[in-house]
Amino acid sequence: MPVDGAAEALRRLADGLDPATLGPELMAHVRDLYPLNRSITGDGLRASLRLLQRLAPVELHEVPSGTAVFDWTVPREWNVRSARLTAPDGRVVADVARCNLHLLGYSVPFRGTVSREELEPHLYSLPDQPDLIPYRTSYYQEAWGFCLSHRVRSTLPPGDYQVEIDTRLEDGTLTYGEVLVPGTEETEVLVSTHCCHPSLANDNCAGMVMCATLARMLAPLRPRHGYRFVFVPGTIGAITWLARNESRTGRIAHGLVSACVADPGQLTYKRSRRGTADVDRAAALVLAASGQPHGLRDFSPYGYDERQYCSPGFDLPVGSLTRTPYGEYPEYHTSADDLTLVRPEALVDTLRRYLEVFEVLEGNRSWRNTSPRCEPQLGKRGLYGSVGGRSHAQARQMAMLWVLNLSDGRHSLLDVAERSRLPFSDLRRAAADLAGAGLLVPA
Amino acid sequence: MPVDGAAEALRRLADGLDPATLGPELMAHVRDLYPLNRSITGDGLRASLRLLQRLAPVELHEVPSGTAVFDWTVPREWNVRSARLTAPDGRVVADVARCNLHLLGYSVPFRGTVSREELEPHLYSLPDQPDLIPYRTSYYQEAWGFCLSHRVRSTLPPGDYQVEIDTRLEDGTLTYGEVLVPGTEETEVLVSTHCCHPSLANDNCAGMVMCATLARMLAPLRPRHGYRFVFVPGTIGAITWLARNESRTGRIAHGLVSACVADPGQLTYKRSRRGTADVDRAAALVLAASGQPHGLRDFSPYGYDERQYCSPGFDLPVGSLTRTPYGEYPEYHTSADDLTLVRPEALVDTLRRYLEVFEVLEGNRSWRNTSPRCEPQLGKRGLYGSVGGRSHAQARQMAMLWVLNLSDGRHSLLDVAERSRLPFSDLRRAAADLAGAGLLVPA
Amino acid sequence: MPVDGAAEALRRLADGLDPATLGPELMAHVRDLYPLNRSITGDGLRASLRLLQRLAPVELHEVPSGTAVFDWTVPREWNVRSARLTAPDGRVVADVARCNLHLLGYSVPFRGTVSREELEPHLYSLPDQPDLIPYRTSYYQEAWGFCLSHRVRSTLPPGDYQVEIDTRLEDGTLTYGEVLVPGTEETEVLVSTHCCHPSLANDNCAGMVMCATLARMLAPLRPRHGYRFVFVPGTIGAITWLARNESRTGRIAHGLVSACVADPGQLTYKRSRRGTADVDRAAALVLAASGQPHGLRDFSPYGYDERQYCSPGFDLPVGSLTRTPYGEYPEYHTSADDLTLVRPEALVDTLRRYLEVFEVLEGNRSWRNTSPRCEPQLGKRGLYGSVGGRSHAQARQMAMLWVLNLSDGRHSLLDVAERSRLPFSDLRRAAADLAGAGLLVPA
Repeated sequence: MPVDGAAEALRRLADGLDPATLGPELMAHVRDLYPLNRSITGDGLRASLRLLQRLAPVELHEVPSGTAVFDWTVPREWNVRSARLTAPDGRVVADVARCNLHLLGYSVPFRGTVSREELEPHLYSLPDQPDLIPYRTSYYQEAWGFCLSHRVRSTLPPGDYQVEIDTRLEDGTLTYGEVLVPGTEETEVLVSTHCCHPSLANDNCAGMVMCATLARMLAPLRPRHGYRFVFVPGTIGAITWLARNESRTGRIAHGLVSACVADPGQLTYKRSRRGTADVDRAAALVLAASGQPHGLRDFSPYGYDERQYCSPGFDLPVGSLTRTPYGEYPEYHTSADDLTLVRPEALVDTLRRYLEVFEVLEGNRSWRNTSPRCEPQLGKRGLYGSVGGRSHAQARQMAMLWVLNLSDGRHSLLDVAERSRLPFSDLRRAAADLAGAGLLVPA
Repeated sequence: MPVDGAAEALRRLADGLDPATLGPELMAHVRDLYPLNRSITGDGLRASLRLLQRLAPVELHEVPSGTAVFDWTVPREWNVRSARLTAPDGRVVADVARCNLHLLGYSVPFRGTVSREELEPHLYSLPDQPDLIPYRTSYYQEAWGFCLSHRVRSTLPPGDYQVEIDTRLEDGTLTYGEVLVPGTEETEVLVSTHCCHPSLANDNCAGMVMCATLARMLAPLRPRHGYRFVFVPGTIGAITWLARNESRTGRIAHGLVSACVADPGQLTYKRSRRGTADVDRAAALVLAASGQPHGLRDFSPYGYDERQYCSPGFDLPVGSLTRTPYGEYPEYHTSADDLTLVRPEALVDTLRRYLEVFEVLEGNRSWRNTSPRCEPQLGKRGLYGSVGGRSHAQARQMAMLWVLNLSDGRHSLLDVAERSRLPFSDLRRAAADLAGAGLLVPA
Repeated sequence: MPVDGAAEALRRLADGLDPATLGPELMAHVRDLYPLNRSITGDGLRASLRLLQRLAPVELHEVPSGTAVFDWTVPREWNVRSARLTAPDGRVVADVARCNLHLLGYSVPFRGTVSREELEPHLYSLPDQPDLIPYRTSYYQEAWGFCLSHRVRSTLPPGDYQVEIDTRLEDGTLTYGEVLVPGTEETEVLVSTHCCHPSLANDNCAGMVMCATLARMLAPLRPRHGYRFVFVPGTIGAITWLARNESRTGRIAHGLVSACVADPGQLTYKRSRRGTADVDRAAALVLAASGQPHGLRDFSPYGYDERQYCSPGFDLPVGSLTRTPYGEYPEYHTSADDLTLVRPEALVDTLRRYLEVFEVLEGNRSWRNTSPRCEPQLGKRGLYGSVGGRSHAQARQMAMLWVLNLSDGRHSLLDVAERSRLPFSDLRRAAADLAGAGLLVPA
């Protein structure tokens, strides 16, 4: 029985990552995604998912406008041909061709001349960050508007403004992507990432690329769990996915929401609503073992799509592993979340921690000690040093002793790792050695 | 369904308290109570309860001497006509007419001449606080004595002392007061305060006045719980009340023992024996939200009448909300616990916290989210801002998200408040809005 | 009913210990044990156990070589006549007659001339502690060797070395000792100490003497639990004892592994695998009450024979009370663990803490308050001071109030001690007084 080959392969993958080659490779994809004008529906979203197909066999799903998904309805599809705001002096002060944040997301078509005063409620800017363009949307209430830097806004004179918004808001479909790396068991690990934001690099071009890369890396490993990667428009996409897969959610044994994975901040894990799910404990182990500063937070019902996965009717064991959390870095949801914010080494580091969490999820088992009364004689099996009297056992022997002691059918390797404070990989390997010697069987 | 109108009214009452007018009003009553010579029975006690009838319809109960109350017996009634100790030089060194602490509580009648040496075991003073007169009693063993300052005691020369103690200790009754503000449900909140101490202002004239004022304030609110205020002589009064109301104790859902409510020290909550009763958690929330330094303590079987309410045969969810706890301020049980120790602003502050605890007890419910799979679409119900992309939801939206997420029938609003760290009032109001929109129903 | 006389007697014994007389008395026995050449079998072990018979009626058990004990087999018996290593220049560089650590434990017979190079893998020394001789064994793999100081080893020139190891490794028996102080109830306290180490004074001549002394002290007390002291060779001895007494282990209600009891370090308690067994809580109470710095550690499956008692098939409530734990003092398993490391006052102090743990184990009961509704009137039974109004109850009264309050059948005196932070002895005595007054009965 080659136990948990995938866990060992994940460990080696994680240990072998080379940021110097992988970083630039991932960045190339982030750079390609960045300029596309994504929203919760539309061609920019579709193009982005197709781009990810270079990395993994992402399947696109199209859900018609008007489809009821729990308390929501899939909205009309939105596409932008052009959008421009011209000042009385002929200056083009906002143009979606220049920066796709300039247009309020889901702006309805409009063409006309408005006074400075009439324009005012259609403008969005950030007085405290006067050089940045904010990212704003109005998905569920018909509106049009422009987002611009406060510095530009404050120079706008009275007079007549030309508004040219050539968008279509029509029945169509909502698109989401999905790729499943099949597992040898029925259980699944859900990895969900949002793909509805236009040119915001860290939030979430980086996450889309990282997730597709993880899918590519996992595919050859024949993991125990299936790994289901879903690329969904935020909120409505996750809700749509859940509505269409409701009967399948029972298989989700573990899950992570991925976003903001490449900024220079420290890694942060936000626990699932359950708080002590295996994925919560695995992430905490991995971050502690990283030796780097990191954050651990309890669940709150605000953030990304963990809001949906952890709604009380589902309460799935889904946490969120990010770098700086949503809303906590100054560039968040502004034009400053650009390609310079994404650090290749940070992106590779986040990807490594995902692999390490997967290693724990793959390798975590409950074993049963077949020789539970007193210690088995490891020496006669070549598993123990023959000269006694030394004061400290070797790390490998300590790992074996811990695994034997707690393998009573009521403790998983995660339990052993938490209690012993030994590296999970050491315990997993010790368990494999002991199982090889017949001293452990699956509980 | 006007849900929890009383909770909202209590919030407004608490927010609207004006120490500048309420403080002097309460102090006037404290000043009237202070000089009366109270004990665990007798006319001073009766007069004090009648004085409280100016504030609330306190009903007086009279329990005959000799009545068996659990392991105890209601004692004979004690009344004092006069008591005086005269020194050999004619100096009156103790006179109950001057300070009613001078006479050992429950002193039996005695008239005679005693030597300095014979007098000695009948004197009580405080060597470490030589200017203060202590408060001492001998309820259950017949004795007579005088309490005086150590400074005076140390000047007492040898010679003949005249003792004139004109008291009556005869069959009569024990008196206690009770007022019930009826609730719309069967459950009751018990508020118990002792009223047996003679001229000790903080302990407990202030508590008696505060409790009667709370009863007056609650009466017009039509609360959900009944609020039962009992004004009892310490220990024997609480035991008597419990003995006469044993069958009714099952209705007591929450309770507080009130004492020492007006000294300048910080607020202190002593948990019930259960330790995690709703009232324990409500008081902790209220004190934390006050933003003031405060104390939280575990139950101990010493203190005031929580000793009886939390005896193992009852184990009622009754804590104690005081300022400085019994025995921990230097003026405790001495003549220095006088009107100068009682601070009007402290008394109003304590009363405010009682109202806030009541708000939590009134507003705490378990709700069930009627749309538990994914978030309901708040926007279409006018409960959510329409422009997306902002990094922080408004406080009201956060309160709604928390309430929706945890309203699975297993969490009360108290649970939500503890986990979210949001103000209880915000959560209560969010729940009312959501219930109004049909998104919550009582669990 | 003279409740728990043994607990009270243990308290008095502990309080009455006189290090000035007991210390030297214990040291005399340690000094006698020290030079004997013990191993996991053989005549040195036997002689050591017989020497303990001067203190307590230790019964010797002989288990034949080849006996199967769980996953292990009782090894052949090992005895040493002489063992010497002579350098080319005629210098005797190791001689078991000079220091019995010189010979690798369980060395097989060997006589011959070997070159310096051939000798090398047979030598054991400590480069970091160049003046000390290490203690090493090879029980389960046939080998021979010498342990010597690194300083001497580094002076060994090339040339021919005379090896003369006159040992016998033959079928025989493994010896262990046992003494039971019978109890009035079925439950037993297991105290296990290893006796296989040659001249190591703290590890574990001191422990052997302490345990035999405890057995002597307990015998006249008629304790409630039986106290079973086992003197076993490390690992194989404990395994052998468990194999031969498997059906009896259900009686072991509490247990302690004793070792390293006399070095100058602070007391350390290592919890049982269960972590919250009564013995774990009793030891924590005793160490906290000692007022001395001390250590508390969670169980780990490395150390002494708690490894066997706490193996998952037994999971006995057995902790370990030592001074400096195994492997954590520099003299550990070297020739520096000699008679100078053993401090009489430390040995008496450790013994005292064992007596105090036994006091808790003997005195710990669950009581039921016969007057659970309100406090009983202690005053009328002479159990409470008659003058009221004082701010602090006496310690005895506090102990009674705590015991009464928590004696609802669900709390033991250990629970009361932990919650009240009052001395266990005070609570135990308060319970005895209350039981004497009919206010408590066994739960």
